[in-house]
Amino acid sequence: MLQEGVKADRSLDYIASFQRITGEQFVFTDAESLDKYAHDETENLHFLPGVVIKPRTAEEISAIMRICNEHHIPVTPRGAGTGLSGGALPHRGGVLLSMERMNSILEIDERNLQVTTEPGVITEVLQNAVKEKGLFYPPDPSSRGSCFIGGNIAENSGGPKAVKYGVVKDYVLNLEVVLPNGDIIWTGANVLKNSTGYNLTQLVVGSEGTLGIVTKIVLKLLPHPKYDLLMLVPFNSLEKAGEAVSAIFRAGFTPSAMELVEINALKIVSKFVDSSVVPVTDEMEAHLIIEVDGNHMDTLMSEMEAIAELLTRYDCGDVFFADDAQQKAELWKLRRRVAEAVKIDGYTIEEDTVVPRAELPALIRGVKELGRQYRFDVVCYGHAGDGNLHIRIRKPGSIYSLNNPDVIPALKALFELVKSLGGTISGEHGIGLVQKEYMDIVFSGAQMQLMKGIKKTFDPNNILNSGKIFDAE
Amino acid sequence: MLQEGVKADRSLDYIASFQRITGEQFVFTDAESLDKYAHDETENLHFLPGVVIKPRTAEEISAIMRICNEHHIPVTPRGAGTGLSGGALPHRGGVLLSMERMNSILEIDERNLQVTTEPGVITEVLQNAVKEKGLFYPPDPSSRGSCFIGGNIAENSGGPKAVKYGVVKDYVLNLEVVLPNGDIIWTGANVLKNSTGYNLTQLVVGSEGTLGIVTKIVLKLLPHPKYDLLMLVPFNSLEKAGEAVSAIFRAGFTPSAMELVEINALKIVSKFVDSSVVPVTDEMEAHLIIEVDGNHMDTLMSEMEAIAELLTRYDCGDVFFADDAQQKAELWKLRRRVAEAVKIDGYTIEEDTVVPRAELPALIRGVKELGRQYRFDVVCYGHAGDGNLHIRIRKPGSIYSLNNPDVIPALKALFELVKSLGGTISGEHGIGLVQKEYMDIVFSGAQMQLMKGIKKTFDPNNILNSGKIFDAE
Repeated sequence: MLQEGVKADRSLDYIASFQRITGEQFVFTDAESLDKYAHDETENLHFLPGVVIKPRTAEEISAIMRICNEHHIPVTPRGAGTGLSGGALPHRGGVLLSMERMNSILEIDERNLQVTTEPGVITEVLQNAVKEKGLFYPPDPSSRGSCFIGGNIAENSGGPKAVKYGVVKDYVLNLEVVLPNGDIIWTGANVLKNSTGYNLTQLVVGSEGTLGIVTKIVLKLLPHPKYDLLMLVPFNSLEKAGEAVSAIFRAGFTPSAMELVEINALKIVSKFVDSSVVPVTDEMEAHLIIEVDGNHMDTLMSEMEAIAELLTRYDCGDVFFADDAQQKAELWKLRRRVAEAVKIDGYTIEEDTVVPRAELPALIRGVKELGRQYRFDVVCYGHAGDGNLHIRIRKPGSIYSLNNPDVIPALKALFELVKSLGGTISGEHGIGLVQKEYMDIVFSGAQMQLMKGIKKTFDPNNILNSGKIFDAE
Repeated sequence: MLQEGVKADRSLDYIASFQRITGEQFVFTDAESLDKYAHDETENLHFLPGVVIKPRTAEEISAIMRICNEHHIPVTPRGAGTGLSGGALPHRGGVLLSMERMNSILEIDERNLQVTTEPGVITEVLQNAVKEKGLFYPPDPSSRGSCFIGGNIAENSGGPKAVKYGVVKDYVLNLEVVLPNGDIIWTGANVLKNSTGYNLTQLVVGSEGTLGIVTKIVLKLLPHPKYDLLMLVPFNSLEKAGEAVSAIFRAGFTPSAMELVEINALKIVSKFVDSSVVPVTDEMEAHLIIEVDGNHMDTLMSEMEAIAELLTRYDCGDVFFADDAQQKAELWKLRRRVAEAVKIDGYTIEEDTVVPRAELPALIRGVKELGRQYRFDVVCYGHAGDGNLHIRIRKPGSIYSLNNPDVIPALKALFELVKSLGGTISGEHGIGLVQKEYMDIVFSGAQMQLMKGIKKTFDPNNILNSGKIFDAE
């Protein structure tokens, strides 16, 4: 049954072919299934696919792509649906390709410190599996308990450890990719250094599922650090907290996490998870969560003390050291659930701005000013060590939609500010559907033409996650 | 005066225009100048350009490119000419664009731990300049005393520190690039995390000057580690040395350098630089040079001892610890000058193979077998910790040229071996002119079509470093 006013989705003409490829039981057209894949964690967006397919192998995906490419049927690949930019939404209908059944860790190569995995593995599951072998895969977005590693590749995700260990792109050695025409390729080789042709691997990472469908992933691993220490530091001034971040790195320290949470966000999340671990008083404006890790406890202790000493120069309050694993877990839970909590509190629009680290105080100051000017409420939190500030906006009486005239001018002003500080639109969430309107703020026509040319090379019929990042045509 | 049999180079028709752009004194057509830019450090290759131009700004390059693009004149950008794959050779004549005058370090941003530089700065000069501010730019090819940072970007260079710190691509945040049509773009933003559109920055890094001409470079810097320790370890068996490399990482150590030098190479270079710092006896087959670095001397000492202890399980001889800065410099001089020494000794063909680290013993074994089979002499050395083995070949009575039937079958067999071990053709030297014949060993038609499509997007008239990496047409 089609919704009234919606013209027949062409993917429905090929249901029988899709069923032959994957087996009948993995092709879905019932209303409940379609609805389940119509949204992700991005604001209030809802787009129904024509059909949901859950393939198991690259070969099945290849066969599906050949049909879709021939008949110009839109295809949207999807991980766990935890995305924050609408990248996995089937806004043009067609085939929704869910990677959830491709969920095997294929090989943990202890000789070479590498792991080969399918894309549908939950990031935390992967992290735990390699940790059992003493190995470490650092990038862990806040959603690591539910997001897929394949989605992390698509968005070039970061997370709190990025400040010391880098982001997803820094760990991807090689990718098996199904191209829109059905060809299956490897992008590179399972090696630590590679100067052999254009870097197709790095081109696919962060391309948000618009260039190909990643079906196998080879990641570099590190030896797992033996120890970590965590502290929470309150600041009377949000800007001073931002200044302190920069000072720590300038003094030669490289913490393994350096997170900032504004007091309003902390209040909301403390209520949300019913935690009293963090004492919250009215004269505080923000907290830094600082972690150091390594193999020598003495070294970490002395580093932590030196950092705490340095911070006293920035009007910080009493430093709270997490005593044990439970306190650390509690602190991290607070940090990881901020987005969820503030969203429920009405801050539905999340931006993912990133600036050079030392520009953080200027960004924070500017954001607050824009809030006053455009009359929206704003809370800030994020990966301060990377200059990656998540800005959540609540505009009373206004629900976010792609073309809401209430919101667009404010976001444009925000991104103009970010650009003026040497930053850009997205640090780790991607552009997807919801930021693409703003790409021309940071990129000129020349850069957009290059991106469109690359898209056309990979996907001449513009069927794969079409209309994400930019409109190819 | 043209060489007999060579048809007039079309770049000569536009000399007056080029002179107007850069000033007369920076456009060269005299025989001596042309000859100077006809070769690099790659074997015995010699190709004369039509004209040598030494621009000073991106705007000058833009104006030159507009002329060349309109009239389909080949343009070859060139750094210091230290390349080992012929990437900077003007094998189709035309304009040779030397970046040597664009040699300013524009800004060392101590607040953000970044440096902005022009491409013609010598890598070691850049390293020393940031070191004076307590900052660290790790990638340092053996040629760091003469190579340009721009060339390092073009080839995605590595060097000994890559094993801990990564290669050039891991430090490039943003690039100003002149496109073949003369447009000047920035590829990204000066930020540590970026999920905003396709990663044009990483696409240009390692593209060997075929996609655009890099005119400004923004690099991430680290705090400079305070201490390092260096040791030299002899092994009775080359393969055992390879096994030891893998074991060190598996045990959780991450040395800041892990270099391998085969005994023949060490003998040659010891004579070449007249050094007796390394005792060489006939029962040795190879040496490992191992460095650790960090901010805590106690930690380093205990790590070094633990590594030395571990190595005794792999039949190593007496470990030699470098006592002071002079001994360290002496050891590094030996390592850095190996390539030069063995080349003079007749090993003119250098390959830059890379495999997963643990496959190093199999690669070494295979290379020796191929040497016997194809009757060439071979010496191995390189960045063992990365699985990046430089293989130098000497075939008595045979001089290397691109189409030498004596050499090609042996190199094909070598690259087939590398591929079978999960590796690829080039780890850090690039494909350039001399490896492009072998690209189809590691890439299928599908991948080559993608690369050619990308090239066409950037350079539709195929004027920029045309015929390097692959033939675009």
